[in-house]
Amino acid sequence: RVDGSRLWSTIMETAKFGATPAGGINRLTLSEEDRQVRDWFRDACEAAGLEVSVDALGTQFALRRGRDMSRAPIACGSHLDTQPTGGKFDGILGTLAGLEAMRALNDAGIETDAPLLLVNWTNEEGSRYAPAMMASAAYAGEFTLADIHSREDAAGISVAQALERIGYLGTEPVGQRRIGAFVELHIEQGPILEAEQTTIGVVEGGQGIAWFDGAVTGFESHAGTTPMPRRRDALNGLAEIALAVERIAHAHGPTAVATIGEAVIGAPSRNVIPGRIRFTLDVRDPKGETLDAIESELRAEIDGIAQRRKLDIDLTRIWRKEPVPFDAAVVGAVEAATRGLSLSHRRMVSGAGHDACNIAALAPTAMIFVPCRDGISHNEAESATQSDCTAGADVLLQTLLTLADA
Amino acid sequence: RVDGSRLWSTIMETAKFGATPAGGINRLTLSEEDRQVRDWFRDACEAAGLEVSVDALGTQFALRRGRDMSRAPIACGSHLDTQPTGGKFDGILGTLAGLEAMRALNDAGIETDAPLLLVNWTNEEGSRYAPAMMASAAYAGEFTLADIHSREDAAGISVAQALERIGYLGTEPVGQRRIGAFVELHIEQGPILEAEQTTIGVVEGGQGIAWFDGAVTGFESHAGTTPMPRRRDALNGLAEIALAVERIAHAHGPTAVATIGEAVIGAPSRNVIPGRIRFTLDVRDPKGETLDAIESELRAEIDGIAQRRKLDIDLTRIWRKEPVPFDAAVVGAVEAATRGLSLSHRRMVSGAGHDACNIAALAPTAMIFVPCRDGISHNEAESATQSDCTAGADVLLQTLLTLADA
Ligand SMILES: NC(=O)NCCC(=O)O
Ligand SMILES: NC(=O)NCCC(=O)O
Repeated sequence: RVDGSRLWSTIMETAKFGATPAGGINRLTLSEEDRQVRDWFRDACEAAGLEVSVDALGTQFALRRGRDMSRAPIACGSHLDTQPTGGKFDGILGTLAGLEAMRALNDAGIETDAPLLLVNWTNEEGSRYAPAMMASAAYAGEFTLADIHSREDAAGISVAQALERIGYLGTEPVGQRRIGAFVELHIEQGPILEAEQTTIGVVEGGQGIAWFDGAVTGFESHAGTTPMPRRRDALNGLAEIALAVERIAHAHGPTAVATIGEAVIGAPSRNVIPGRIRFTLDVRDPKGETLDAIESELRAEIDGIAQRRKLDIDLTRIWRKEPVPFDAAVVGAVEAATRGLSLSHRRMVSGAGHDACNIAALAPTAMIFVPCRDGISHNEAESATQSDCTAGADVLLQTLLTLADA
Repeated sequence: RVDGSRLWSTIMETAKFGATPAGGINRLTLSEEDRQVRDWFRDACEAAGLEVSVDALGTQFALRRGRDMSRAPIACGSHLDTQPTGGKFDGILGTLAGLEAMRALNDAGIETDAPLLLVNWTNEEGSRYAPAMMASAAYAGEFTLADIHSREDAAGISVAQALERIGYLGTEPVGQRRIGAFVELHIEQGPILEAEQTTIGVVEGGQGIAWFDGAVTGFESHAGTTPMPRRRDALNGLAEIALAVERIAHAHGPTAVATIGEAVIGAPSRNVIPGRIRFTLDVRDPKGETLDAIESELRAEIDGIAQRRKLDIDLTRIWRKEPVPFDAAVVGAVEAATRGLSLSHRRMVSGAGHDACNIAALAPTAMIFVPCRDGISHNEAESATQSDCTAGADVLLQTLLTLADA
């Protein structure tokens, strides 16, 4: 069993790196705050006797040796970066629960057969650099190192520059380690477990995700002198797109969701009709065909809006992640551990993307969810109870033991 | 008569201060670029023998002495600041045509009875600091100096600080000079004169303007895990507001116009449902009652949107400028000058706000409009012909002579 109060105090201790006045965390990937939590994590892992290294995308690996070092390590972990208005649990719980599992094994004097590996993946959130789950995707070979290194944030700082600035441009090649299996503990980030008063979600897979960059181009002109019928207002065009996105996602309900998260007017002024807007779009569904259907229905709507309003509207898909099924044996091991601990549970599909969805392409993988208050995440008010966090960490520990000694 | 090619070359010469690659000007009020054009203007006025001074809001006054210095000066001028994506003529034509009028009088050796006064008003555009026509409103006593000095731009820099930084915090008290009459030449910024192939607009007044600050507050949450029916998406709320604004303005057509010029999502991220948006709203009509009607219809719509979407929506009126009728005698003098020069003309109401609309409260005032291409303004593509600019400057010169020698 893990020490639940020790786990809780590490969560609260690291929450100071990037703490916001509203009680959340603003710790964008590769920021100064991210450097601080990474340094803390390295020191804590070394104090627990783990061998820490950093790869060329800044991902931190902490190895606990096993009896049979010829076996591929059984891995766990998650991420320590957050959204700009993120909470204290998203990613952090899974990473620090992995640390707690190592400490608990040390305390109990347990040596596993296979080695264990704890991972802090770089840029899971995708807020500063697209796509989300960046480093684990590169690890799984979905992107080249050069491609990812050259991606830029809104200020034009590349991933390679940001890594160098915070001293986390590691030397270990990306994707070189064998991984025997991967288990990620995470808050659900949705409302289901809480509504059903269930402690553990045994996650069978992740839904599909498509990300788009969009731009609406109209014509800037004077707000006081340009008659309504002559206007080519980019904001009003975006307004129709936003409502179409919402309508189409509803029509593919209850599973589908679609969100315009960013929208920026170019050179805005109170008395100028907006002429240019850039925006982002995030579309998800457990079925790949539904992503296709939503995209084509939206493109048809957009064509109509562009024609009617004399606007140029561009929508470019910049990322697509197919739905990911997890490994039946690892899912079964999670479920068995849950049963062994007499915890209530249900099987479910993840609404969020996770590093586990990428590692699933390389190694048998599954996830463990615990409830979060009101299903709220990507919000400073994100919250989870100590007892649920402890329960999740116990399931993680037992699953690791099962897999490492099998 | 003015020297049209000299006027044109001063317009083109000053266009280098804040020139944009697309051929426009980005010269926000009290910026470094604004300092440059102000220095140029001061030097040019002094070279023309005018006495230049600066008031506590940075407005530049250039006096040409008359025979009877006991008479209040006959004033003209406009502004040299621009929108972030502004053109080469908005404000600039009226200011530099005033300079050209002074130069033409010098060349012809003409001394007027009343003195003449050329003015470059600070912050006409209202883009960096609200409201528009700021310094002329303070001049007319609509705002106190302390109020205006304390207003801040988006970066938190106050008007007083910005004036000091560029060296234009003058010592002359605001509003102390008597003004015998005021005449402002400007591009129309709308499509009417061009469509009717008319050279001169004899402007009888300005329409009413109301400016609002708005905010939509919903709830930030995860774009992948929050079901559509549970969302409180601030952007989709704004989308409905934008389309309501458009619909209501149309319904009060053809005169009414309404524009959301700025809209900024708080802490935006691709995979976060927008929780907060600030926006601005600009509403205009020649009738004050129509402004009232639009506001109350919009508030009713907003209440419905807020209830249906569980959003908090705030809309605060930060400025209201009533419709302004100009002085019949000065309007008549402009029309007589136009007839004397055998130029085609029509009477009209201004869609844009102008410093003349504020000075009308202090002194008999009118305006002269010339066409601009496609009615486009507040756009880098803003354009006017040399011959129309020359015609407008000639009407200005003749009107000044009539008023100063009357
Ligand atoms: N778990 C999580 O919030 N991941 C961020 C990537 C996503 O948008 O799903
Ligand atoms: N003339 C002009 O564009 N003035 C700016 C103030 C406004 O009308 O919005």
